[in-house]
Amino acid sequence: MKGDEVPVTAPPRATRKVPSVVIVNTGDGKGKSTAAFGTALRAVARGWKVCVVQFIKSDRWKVGERDVATRLGIEWWTVGDGFTWDSDNMERTEAIAREAWRVAKDKIASGDYGLVVLDEVTYPMTWGWIPVDQVVEAIRLRPPTVNVIATGRDAPPELVELADTVSEVRSVKHAFDNGVRAIRGIDF
Amino acid sequence: MKGDEVPVTAPPRATRKVPSVVIVNTGDGKGKSTAAFGTALRAVARGWKVCVVQFIKSDRWKVGERDVATRLGIEWWTVGDGFTWDSDNMERTEAIAREAWRVAKDKIASGDYGLVVLDEVTYPMTWGWIPVDQVVEAIRLRPPTVNVIATGRDAPPELVELADTVSEVRSVKHAFDNGVRAIRGIDF
Repeated sequence: MKGDEVPVTAPPRATRKVPSVVIVNTGDGKGKSTAAFGTALRAVARGWKVCVVQFIKSDRWKVGERDVATRLGIEWWTVGDGFTWDSDNMERTEAIAREAWRVAKDKIASGDYGLVVLDEVTYPMTWGWIPVDQVVEAIRLRPPTVNVIATGRDAPPELVELADTVSEVRSVKHAFDNGVRAIRGIDF
Repeated sequence: MKGDEVPVTAPPRATRKVPSVVIVNTGDGKGKSTAAFGTALRAVARGWKVCVVQFIKSDRWKVGERDVATRLGIEWWTVGDGFTWDSDNMERTEAIAREAWRVAKDKIASGDYGLVVLDEVTYPMTWGWIPVDQVVEAIRLRPPTVNVIATGRDAPPELVELADTVSEVRSVKHAFDNGVRAIRGIDF
């Protein structure tokens, strides 16, 4: 759909049916987590069990998406300890991230969910808190009907390699960089 | 958050409070519309009135996100005529896109909504069906509390210029390009 021509020919048809896919939303732009939540909407619409595990956001944050998602029957785990710069005990923060991964791994392996979202999982992977090979292995060996979406900047190459669909959300500009405060209802 | 250092210093604080923002999700990757829907979740969670106008998707498609969004009280208008390559009357398809814009313009101008999503609006703009300057003008002159999200590939420069936040969703890879069929519950 480049240029200004109205497309009149359909793109080639995809024919391969797969039981599930792995999606990675990475990059420095806004939209990685919200795209995962938007896909979760589609999943619950089809009657799937959906689980979201948040690796950074803590229980202390009352984010709007969590309320609404819970109302829709989405399981929502905010296991994280919040921003690392707010931590007064980094070992505890790291232990909490590992615990989040233990929860997420079990959810994936259970086969109970049509979709498991690993929100902001790349950060503890990047910091060496959760071994990349364990995450990749758990996703690779998942029950075949479990779709997985992983979000966060700097997705490790092994995760990108494993994924079926990878989007890099690039920040062309961001209101925040212009000094604009986050808006309740838009940013959280 | 580049590299493998755990960030221990908070980023500079944003201090400017604005009543609303304009967000553009563009690029060739997966996640532009779903990110808008995910943000719509946040908006309804805060009790805002939310309206989604779809410029390409037609009423004949029963997309999952529409069911769930309607359940949440989101107004959902699928005014579009479907893929252009399925059209047997391109003038009618074009007229329908113009009608979608008339609806969207009224919704924005009404000031009734905290968020108006213009889903896939860039395509009819690119094809010359909806004048870019009219869209930019309607958004620029909107009531101050109305947030607007526009999605679609090849966002016109004037729209990018006007926006507060612009994300380019770049396709690193897409299951579809590998012949994998769309999955009900993930892709629609």
